Amino acid sequence: MTAQEVERGRFVRQPNRFTERITADGSSGYPVEPGRYRLFVSYACPWAHRSLIVRRLLGLEDALPVAVVDPIRDERGWRFPDRDPVTGAVFLSELYLASDPSFEGRYTVPCIWDTVTERLVTNDFPNITTMLETEFTALHRPGAPDLYPEPLRPEIDELNDLVYDTVNNGVYKAGFAKAQDAYEDAFDALFATFDRLEERLAGSRYLLGDRITEADVRLYPTLARFDAVYYSHFKCNLRRLVDYPNLWGYARDLYSVPAFGETTNLDHIKRHYYGTHGDINPSGIVPKGPLIDWTAPHGRGSRTGG
Amino acid sequence: MTAQEVERGRFVRQPNRFTERITADGSSGYPVEPGRYRLFVSYACPWAHRSLIVRRLLGLEDALPVAVVDPIRDERGWRFPDRDPVTGAVFLSELYLASDPSFEGRYTVPCIWDTVTERLVTNDFPNITTMLETEFTALHRPGAPDLYPEPLRPEIDELNDLVYDTVNNGVYKAGFAKAQDAYEDAFDALFATFDRLEERLAGSRYLLGDRITEADVRLYPTLARFDAVYYSHFKCNLRRLVDYPNLWGYARDLYSVPAFGETTNLDHIKRHYYGTHGDINPSGIVPKGPLIDWTAPHGRGSRTGG
Repeated sequence: MTAQEVERGRFVRQPNRFTERITADGSSGYPVEPGRYRLFVSYACPWAHRSLIVRRLLGLEDALPVAVVDPIRDERGWRFPDRDPVTGAVFLSELYLASDPSFEGRYTVPCIWDTVTERLVTNDFPNITTMLETEFTALHRPGAPDLYPEPLRPEIDELNDLVYDTVNNGVYKAGFAKAQDAYEDAFDALFATFDRLEERLAGSRYLLGDRITEADVRLYPTLARFDAVYYSHFKCNLRRLVDYPNLWGYARDLYSVPAFGETTNLDHIKRHYYGTHGDINPSGIVPKGPLIDWTAPHGRGSRTGG
Repeated sequence: MTAQEVERGRFVRQPNRFTERITADGSSGYPVEPGRYRLFVSYACPWAHRSLIVRRLLGLEDALPVAVVDPIRDERGWRFPDRDPVTGAVFLSELYLASDPSFEGRYTVPCIWDTVTERLVTNDFPNITTMLETEFTALHRPGAPDLYPEPLRPEIDELNDLVYDTVNNGVYKAGFAKAQDAYEDAFDALFATFDRLEERLAGSRYLLGDRITEADVRLYPTLARFDAVYYSHFKCNLRRLVDYPNLWGYARDLYSVPAFGETTNLDHIKRHYYGTHGDINPSGIVPKGPLIDWTAPHGRGSRTGG
């Protein structure tokens, strides 16, 4: 999860510091090699969740090992439940400062560490998933889906821009707003996009038709957190996800796929948000609700024969 | 709204300071007289809401004038939007300190002022409504209902005790808890009572059968605030009110009665809670949602022929 600044009561996300790429041809100096890199994630963080979903969909579990931080983050940043056995780090900050001793921003997940050069390659979350999809192809499992097909990229990119601005980051703009108008602008944009997505999903099993793509990977983590956290904690409460028949059916359809469902850790999600944002929830108390049945039949399969 | 203390993370409501009674026979020194007393309320406060409902149901609007405080309360306590024309007070505290210069608790609504002796008679909210029902009978409108019928009092009182402890005050115990276990105990008790009430209202239009009583007057103000405030702000989020068919139909049925619906000011309610509790909502931002249709047909009329 990346850091924040506030300008006139509006939340602005910090730029990502490490933006190098691991490449199939090795031209970047970071060649694709099985087991060489290490992915650091939080189950709570929606940006990291994307990378877990893609790693699993593409069968990269062995090629790209993962380490998971503790869900509660204090002023020292993310920490490991136990010392990370590969890097020896206790706090994620150690990896950032080993890579750039002058680094002063927040220490964010997801990020990828190179065990050969012993430095961070990237914490550039918007490009980590597409890098796994397009550069790591030699390591994909047999029959792995193409999540970012060339002909669909313009449409996927356009949809992703809207979803990032109004949904993925939109909930943060609502929740971290310090001014009523900044909050209301984010709120209105979020639910306007939900209305568009609800309509789009009336005629299509996934966002781009009958196949899961990068667009679904990016929307899902926000939906997974919506009713449990964003609705109350970030005041995104015009309607709940479960009040949108198509969006909610779509979310459950994705949840039934292990790459989505088994990477969704609602315990970490709830404990992280309610336990970490002292400026939003000073008591740190974690709500017991809501009751949500993610395993209810979604009825989406027949929509496209998929 | 009354004050709070916290013991081991549990919310404890302060005792009410002024507990005298206005009586039909005048034996208390405060005889019932039309226009002599002044009721101070906040539309936001559920304890004050009770007294507004009863005043209206019994037709006491002229006999017992009312003054409404501003919904936002700061460290100086409740204030009037303009100086109260009868007492000249700007802050409610002035009336408390005029009545008892040594008073050190919180200044709460509802309270009743005597314009003859120029002091507060009572801020004892549990007894204000029954006092209006049983002592002010000479001033009731023709055909006013008996909200506290003698034969039903034991059952009403028993139900009121449960509803007070687990629902009316239960939401405060959840919301003001400073410890996870205190919160969870209040949460569990609240929703256990909701289950009992849901079942009770399956076979009965109102809590005590086919007539509105004091029991309905006490339950309604919490229901009116539930989805808009308590669900998120106080973390009472196992289910929403609208997820209980009988409770939600019952609440809409009551809302359709002017004494209930026209005293329900959701704007004041939302601005008060989100704007006043800086320890729960430091930003002071007021959520735009949720969408709730209080005027949807309730379908309850046929249940008892009432």
